Amino acid sequence: MSPAPQAYAKKLTAKLPPELSVCYFTNSGSEANDLAVLMARLYTRRWEVVTLRNGYHGASPFLMGATALSTWRYATPTGFGFVNAAHPDPYRGEWGGRLQRLRRPAWSCDCQQSGQCSAASKYVAQLEDTLRFSCPKAGPAAFLAESIQGVGASSNSRAATSARRSRLCARRPAACASPTSGAGHCHHGQEHRERVPAGRGGHLAGVARTLAEALHFNTFGGNPLACAVGTAVLDVIDEEKLQENCQRVGQRLLSGLQRLRQSNQLIGDVRGKGLMVGVELVADRASRAPLEAPRMARLFEATREAGVLVGKGGFYGNVLRLQPPMCVTEADADATVEAIGEAIKAAN
Amino acid sequence: MSPAPQAYAKKLTAKLPPELSVCYFTNSGSEANDLAVLMARLYTRRWEVVTLRNGYHGASPFLMGATALSTWRYATPTGFGFVNAAHPDPYRGEWGGRLQRLRRPAWSCDCQQSGQCSAASKYVAQLEDTLRFSCPKAGPAAFLAESIQGVGASSNSRAATSARRSRLCARRPAACASPTSGAGHCHHGQEHRERVPAGRGGHLAGVARTLAEALHFNTFGGNPLACAVGTAVLDVIDEEKLQENCQRVGQRLLSGLQRLRQSNQLIGDVRGKGLMVGVELVADRASRAPLEAPRMARLFEATREAGVLVGKGGFYGNVLRLQPPMCVTEADADATVEAIGEAIKAAN
Repeated sequence: MSPAPQAYAKKLTAKLPPELSVCYFTNSGSEANDLAVLMARLYTRRWEVVTLRNGYHGASPFLMGATALSTWRYATPTGFGFVNAAHPDPYRGEWGGRLQRLRRPAWSCDCQQSGQCSAASKYVAQLEDTLRFSCPKAGPAAFLAESIQGVGASSNSRAATSARRSRLCARRPAACASPTSGAGHCHHGQEHRERVPAGRGGHLAGVARTLAEALHFNTFGGNPLACAVGTAVLDVIDEEKLQENCQRVGQRLLSGLQRLRQSNQLIGDVRGKGLMVGVELVADRASRAPLEAPRMARLFEATREAGVLVGKGGFYGNVLRLQPPMCVTEADADATVEAIGEAIKAAN
Repeated sequence: MSPAPQAYAKKLTAKLPPELSVCYFTNSGSEANDLAVLMARLYTRRWEVVTLRNGYHGASPFLMGATALSTWRYATPTGFGFVNAAHPDPYRGEWGGRLQRLRRPAWSCDCQQSGQCSAASKYVAQLEDTLRFSCPKAGPAAFLAESIQGVGASSNSRAATSARRSRLCARRPAACASPTSGAGHCHHGQEHRERVPAGRGGHLAGVARTLAEALHFNTFGGNPLACAVGTAVLDVIDEEKLQENCQRVGQRLLSGLQRLRQSNQLIGDVRGKGLMVGVELVADRASRAPLEAPRMARLFEATREAGVLVGKGGFYGNVLRLQPPMCVTEADADATVEAIGEAIKAAN
């Protein structure tokens, strides 16, 4: 027996609330979510699992039902019992959000006066409706959501509704599940506080009893090499204060991109948290029509030619996904903003 | 980009038939089988997947339907469309097998005269019936079987029916899928020749076209570190002739255990291939009643006290699973046989 898995588990759980004191290591986010949903269903003796549109939860044939993006779903029956609820998207959602900073002319918004974003309540009402109409009265087995939608191009629904969502779930004793690797627990600069099988229902003894009904194991999960790497990574994150770096550099990146947006009509939205940033490109700001694919491709190539490699994402493939390594510097952030600025000029 | 994944893929495919020239790396056997079934269904536009009883194909909620062992299945709807067919088990199966070397008194068997085991034809007829009655006329999407049942305690159904099974599947253009890590491709001393999505239906261009209908990726699959490890392992297997070692030492282990069986009524069956060996313990040889759990536990502990760590398996938990590292020696094999012999005395 190697001490590596125990050492890693100890270091990881030290970063979580005290009631989350047990680790089970899998090989991927998909495997983790597969197991999380199974545990939630077995433990709660319920069935429905609520996820949010535009969310990505894994590519296994089971989780394709949880992943609410047609780009990632095949025309074959997927895992069933998943209910894809409305996503409180501040840019493309029905009611905007976050003080409706990018509001359409047609929106009537009195948020500025009250200082409270009324959109959040409307999205919460949508979720209430989903629970009311598409789940049994007792509630769902689990609620599965990303703290920030990675594959969905850094769309951040958490800020708007996280607290209220938790309250919704808490009212019904369901499990509350965590995202896949794509959501980057550390990357956005904060520890993530909700884990599987957290939430009111996830009492450890009960979960253990449930899992003892059959056998479960994982051949490679928690292998000593991977655990040693994980421990070293946690050490470096702490020693080099990389989460703080994500926050500081991320803020600089976001500010720079917001400035760029003011002078570039092609940038419809700039969003994100820490170093998970999305820049949504549009052909028209008022209608928010996505930038046409050929122009998007030109812009994408021009960014590369300007010296920065970025990802592409979002449902229309019109969002630059910036998720650089946690160790990038403010100078890197400035260079990125400059490169995107040049690329937009080149693509115009 | 690291050259490690390409190097590993090249080395791996060199060991396979020329038509299997493309690798896609996943993180585990479960992930590989999840994807294999998805690909087979999408490509064939069929649904049913035939697996064998006593087989283990993964612990994901989807594959629990393929895994035909109640020990590994939870009371929750699993992946559907899996048909668990009869397993041609030479020891516990209806018709024995392999010249019915361990035949029950009640069996009438003329194999010894003809030199041909007639059991195989009967098992094949069972599979024909499964296809006839539980699948659509066009046939299943895939046939998923282990070359040797690892979790099912080294029960080897391949020797009996592999060729005929392949012919059965070939008659219908379905994919023919490979086992999980538990079946140990190298461990039993031979390369495994059927891979996903092999079989008549698995034309590469068609599979690629099918997968282009949506997006699929794997965050950690094919990571450079794992690929470098894999390449090094393949090198060591070749350089130290470890597959030949599996065959030679395995043969010695099997012969020793067969001798032990002659003088020990508790040993009902000795089986396996290479270094995947099972020793089935029984309370009664004629009825093949499994050894009672307390005696089994004593025997298990006594083996450990005699200096050898073995696994436990089989549906009744009454099989010693011997799957030592590929580098063990003939002296190790002899010591193992001796330890098990001592343990049986102690447990008696």
